[in-house]
Amino acid sequence: MNNCILCQKQNENIIKENELFRVILVDEIPGFIRVILNKHIAEFSDLSLEEYHQIMDEVYRIEKIMRKHLNPDKINIASLGNYVPHLHIHIIPRYKNDAFWPDSIWSEKHREYEYKTTNQQIQNMIDEIKS
Amino acid sequence: MNNCILCQKQNENIIKENELFRVILVDEIPGFIRVILNKHIAEFSDLSLEEYHQIMDEVYRIEKIMRKHLNPDKINIASLGNYVPHLHIHIIPRYKNDAFWPDSIWSEKHREYEYKTTNQQIQNMIDEIKS
Repeated sequence: MNNCILCQKQNENIIKENELFRVILVDEIPGFIRVILNKHIAEFSDLSLEEYHQIMDEVYRIEKIMRKHLNPDKINIASLGNYVPHLHIHIIPRYKNDAFWPDSIWSEKHREYEYKTTNQQIQNMIDEIKS
Repeated sequence: MNNCILCQKQNENIIKENELFRVILVDEIPGFIRVILNKHIAEFSDLSLEEYHQIMDEVYRIEKIMRKHLNPDKINIASLGNYVPHLHIHIIPRYKNDAFWPDSIWSEKHREYEYKTTNQQIQNMIDEIKS
């Protein structure tokens, strides 16, 4: 647990945080958001139903805000945790012909892709997630 | 929409179904479950919050039942839909040293793997999901 990189919160761009979880902006893809549980547990069903609702309601809210500001062709949501078994949920804006489209971002890269997302769009999304 | 394979419900092994969604057993991996919305919509935030809770509560319930009967090393949950933009959620039992471990099942295959899951375990899981 002491070696868990998600327990250590290192180099995270935290957008908002409460007692249960934090929301971070991920560098890999413009607008990529990750919701990370603050406790070191591996699976959703380790949460109480109340905690699960609290975290999943935030995922729903972020998805809505992401669609409004980034206008992606699809949103991918995933909780894998095979490398780091500390509950976290990826919320990923996807665009037709992005580097991995139509496959997952964990699949083989198909091409180079330049995101058209502007810093202003990202900032507007962050501001609304914070609000 | 008429061409959508998830609207057509073809060749699905349906475990349970209600007005909002159905739960199917997926062939690819023993115990792999998919929850498929009955309506043709693409994203969680196209659902009302009440519908979202209904479907996500079932995901939480299935995850708990899957852990009890299959004892996986990790559960992967994902809603991608890049190929088929009709909301569906994968609930995947993962095992250390399975064919894709520690990567996603949409990543490159690393090795051959023989699942130790028994038909009885799968049937017990199905029975409890139905109940």
